[in-house]
Amino acid sequence: MSKILRVNMTARTVAFEAVPEKYKEMGGRWITSNIVCDEVSPTCHPLGPGNKIVYAAGIVTGTAAPTSGRISIGGKSPLTGTIKETNSGGMAGQKLARLGIKAIVVEGQPAEKGDYWVLKVDKDGAELLPASNSWLGKGLYETYPLLFDEFGEKVAIIGIGIAGERLMANAGICVNDPENRPSRYAGRGGMGAVMGSKGLKAIIIDDAGDPPGVPIVNKELFDTGRKKLTEALLAHDITKPGGGLNTYGTAVLVNIINEAGGFPTFNFRDGRFTGAAKISGEMIHEICTKRGGVGTTGHGCSPGCVIRCSNVYPKPDGSELVSVQEYESVWSFGANCGIDDLDITGELIRLCNDYGLDTIEAGVTIAMAIEAGLAEFGDGAKAIALMHEIGNGTPLGHILGNGAAITTNVFGVVRCPTVKGQAIPAYDPRAIKGIGITYAISTMGADHTYGYTIAPEMLGVSGKVDQFDVDKVDMARNFQHATAFIDASGYCLFIAFAILDIPSGLAGMVETCSGVLGTDWTVDNIGIIGEEIIRKERAFNTAAGFTKAHDRLPEFMKHEELPPHNVVFDVPDETLDRVHSLQN
Amino acid sequence: MSKILRVNMTARTVAFEAVPEKYKEMGGRWITSNIVCDEVSPTCHPLGPGNKIVYAAGIVTGTAAPTSGRISIGGKSPLTGTIKETNSGGMAGQKLARLGIKAIVVEGQPAEKGDYWVLKVDKDGAELLPASNSWLGKGLYETYPLLFDEFGEKVAIIGIGIAGERLMANAGICVNDPENRPSRYAGRGGMGAVMGSKGLKAIIIDDAGDPPGVPIVNKELFDTGRKKLTEALLAHDITKPGGGLNTYGTAVLVNIINEAGGFPTFNFRDGRFTGAAKISGEMIHEICTKRGGVGTTGHGCSPGCVIRCSNVYPKPDGSELVSVQEYESVWSFGANCGIDDLDITGELIRLCNDYGLDTIEAGVTIAMAIEAGLAEFGDGAKAIALMHEIGNGTPLGHILGNGAAITTNVFGVVRCPTVKGQAIPAYDPRAIKGIGITYAISTMGADHTYGYTIAPEMLGVSGKVDQFDVDKVDMARNFQHATAFIDASGYCLFIAFAILDIPSGLAGMVETCSGVLGTDWTVDNIGIIGEEIIRKERAFNTAAGFTKAHDRLPEFMKHEELPPHNVVFDVPDETLDRVHSLQN
Repeated sequence: MSKILRVNMTARTVAFEAVPEKYKEMGGRWITSNIVCDEVSPTCHPLGPGNKIVYAAGIVTGTAAPTSGRISIGGKSPLTGTIKETNSGGMAGQKLARLGIKAIVVEGQPAEKGDYWVLKVDKDGAELLPASNSWLGKGLYETYPLLFDEFGEKVAIIGIGIAGERLMANAGICVNDPENRPSRYAGRGGMGAVMGSKGLKAIIIDDAGDPPGVPIVNKELFDTGRKKLTEALLAHDITKPGGGLNTYGTAVLVNIINEAGGFPTFNFRDGRFTGAAKISGEMIHEICTKRGGVGTTGHGCSPGCVIRCSNVYPKPDGSELVSVQEYESVWSFGANCGIDDLDITGELIRLCNDYGLDTIEAGVTIAMAIEAGLAEFGDGAKAIALMHEIGNGTPLGHILGNGAAITTNVFGVVRCPTVKGQAIPAYDPRAIKGIGITYAISTMGADHTYGYTIAPEMLGVSGKVDQFDVDKVDMARNFQHATAFIDASGYCLFIAFAILDIPSGLAGMVETCSGVLGTDWTVDNIGIIGEEIIRKERAFNTAAGFTKAHDRLPEFMKHEELPPHNVVFDVPDETLDRVHSLQN
Repeated sequence: MSKILRVNMTARTVAFEAVPEKYKEMGGRWITSNIVCDEVSPTCHPLGPGNKIVYAAGIVTGTAAPTSGRISIGGKSPLTGTIKETNSGGMAGQKLARLGIKAIVVEGQPAEKGDYWVLKVDKDGAELLPASNSWLGKGLYETYPLLFDEFGEKVAIIGIGIAGERLMANAGICVNDPENRPSRYAGRGGMGAVMGSKGLKAIIIDDAGDPPGVPIVNKELFDTGRKKLTEALLAHDITKPGGGLNTYGTAVLVNIINEAGGFPTFNFRDGRFTGAAKISGEMIHEICTKRGGVGTTGHGCSPGCVIRCSNVYPKPDGSELVSVQEYESVWSFGANCGIDDLDITGELIRLCNDYGLDTIEAGVTIAMAIEAGLAEFGDGAKAIALMHEIGNGTPLGHILGNGAAITTNVFGVVRCPTVKGQAIPAYDPRAIKGIGITYAISTMGADHTYGYTIAPEMLGVSGKVDQFDVDKVDMARNFQHATAFIDASGYCLFIAFAILDIPSGLAGMVETCSGVLGTDWTVDNIGIIGEEIIRKERAFNTAAGFTKAHDRLPEFMKHEELPPHNVVFDVPDETLDRVHSLQN
């Protein structure tokens, strides 16, 4: 039967517990946020012994449901001070689910800073092993192979890099991809620092042998739903094989968002970048094709994905530079730093993978360093040198490794594109109002994946919406609720493109969840459950000291016009407050 | 007649305005907090164009009232994000008052960062002059003499050092003392960075000629009050000539607080310091006497002070090292960093004066650097080297110049003794509960001067109170109200020692205010006006996003016992919330 694994890093104990009745139907963000709300004091120090870090696969993760390999990681964020859930693809979610572990809860911390452990979990149980010194203090491209040597090539590894070891607030948590690269990240919110503060270098998940797997209560309903969802994914232009994501990757958005004037350039000074085409998904595809070697688009980040939007980007000689050049990453290091060279963005992303950093926050942080006069826009070599400061652990590296907001504070920079301390991603809210609502009222700081209104505002998914329209309360709320549900399900958020346009796919998605759990949910449960998750998260934040004063975009976006449309963020504060006004 | 001087740094204009009726009776913190509340958006960026900085002398400042030379400086703090008032002695308050200027309001900011101006104010008006490059980028011990050369030896100068020019959140604002040293500070809350963000290097106040002076409506009442207050100050053991403060300076507290087990040592790990006697007021007195030369205690920081608690501390050869070695400064750089050498603390304080930094925040920040492994407790040479990093503007210096909280965030240190981002001063709240209430609920972050319950808890002023008693709601509230009134009056807070014990002194203090204003206040007005000031400030903070979750001491103080009494901070949250519960 499904169980919870509780790991106490103070006492260095592991214990399996029965899943409390109230958590029985929960998965992913739903259960991580609930455990955090139930067990963590909202005013605790995020890096102190009072915080906890929770790992949970989604409801359908580990089954044959398509594109459902997500693992959620939750706790109180050292970057934002809010509750946080960040999820990742890669190999860990499905293996954890198949071991019958509903959630891993890690609490306490070693008395000595720098005392590191590895948690090994397999079908026979769990144990804490002292981390070898050879695994510490170096890049993950060096550490991960050593861990696979030690624990076998078929385990999954959830690990932190030196950024996490140094408790930097931009430390992400890494999950290996199917080829065991340290390349998939639960990146945002600094949860790598929380894992580091627990003295936990890595979790090794070994599902060898005959693990219990994910029980499916209503197999027939599950199969019906799975078929409908798969059909939708295979039919929709964005998600189908040979479709936009599969062919060009997420960076297919570069030209689209740039054309719409919402592609933040030179630290949010312009909505269009003259070098956009050179960092676009089309260019990634062209380079992968031309250079050959290992280069490829259409790479899958976890087994069972039918979208396969990842890529492996080659050096000029065809050898591997990095996987993966995502839209948000080529934006943050590219347009936002004035860099129009994929070989440079690729190297910068590789350094994030190596050090264990979130690419969005890291790129925006480099832009902050540029604002502070430490570099120039467009200077790729200097951007790379700044990233090495983080790796080298210099004082400047410690500043940059803590993200954009701290960097601006340290250097007295006012023009800081963050909300609740987290960097605004690759869609300028002045030109695309709905995503601005998402950024402002998210329970986790600025985060496009919290309610991806880009789908209707830019891509016409579920019907095209005017990007400049400010009256989007219902749309914003519905996207946030739906997203919270998807984050609970274990599905990749990208299934939304298909199921928002194809009703049978939407119904199928819900049926797979009901099939696993034995519930009789309808599509109405998406909103009900999503709202419940967000209500819980907002209550945590309120107790942590957040108010509507924090549900705001940076001041400069309200008075500084963004070319080419020369627009400011003009969604009234009252509108922002209305989205969840029935919840508080 | 009294007027308000409004200075716009965007347009570079100066204009005199009539004092609005609602501000007529106000002075000091009362008027700075009101103008900030009326004119500054609580959610503005503290270093952006939306913040303002307000300078105002107290109600009786500039009259013959004793020990009343304070000037208040208010705005939104970049250190805490709250409203802030910080006040200073020195020469500026009285001269500003005599010019008939009720307040200077500085708003806007130059388009170009690094564009610096000097505001000159005299009886004929005010003008903005471009700052000479020779005044910028160097220590104030070099800059102040150049400014006095330029504007005459008899002006007062309110200026910022390189910390303020660099917009560091621990930048204070300097006021010259009677011998024109850059030695008196409105230090806390980073208001020097706000002044720097306005492009204002200094305000030159020249009261030569025949300025209007401070009108006194009821001269007889004023004189009566002044006499009663002066008699009280001359009679009380703490404030009288030859009394504790006059003989030993504020560092007379070192042995007292150390004996009580409330002297934070090694970053709040102990309540007693074995080296306490070596950094005590008694030792300062002994060294000043022994070394001779310019060394002296009983130095006055502004004309008309009858307490004269300042000192000039000599080098071994009798030449001047620094003025002034205050209790909080010798504590922050001394016991809290494990340093027991007044020559070292003196040099560290001198560097603060030179760079334009608050000594409390700077000392606690050095302790944070020690926590981060950058130095060892007790290593004075290294502490001095770290302070030079701030002066040199290195990345590490930028970290340290922004104060304790940022330093801990950058280096992943959890044990950070701050409230609302401001360092806790020289009284451990675990051993002295009332001052813990002050720290927690202050509208301005941890600040002993916000409600100096040390008077009853340690010194027996107004009746001795048990330091460990947690039930101090009324005491805390009364001290906070009374302090807000004194901060409005222009009197130095140290008059409180006398007037809390001597009722005629208290009445006299109120009579001097009524004499100036033509009001008929009684001692009851102290609480009424003090409460009104605090209510206003709390409303600003609430709109800025502060809640009771921020009215808390650092988490570690609730579970980590402080020797020698082995006590934690055990004042219940409910008690903290009750102090101002009638106000919100």
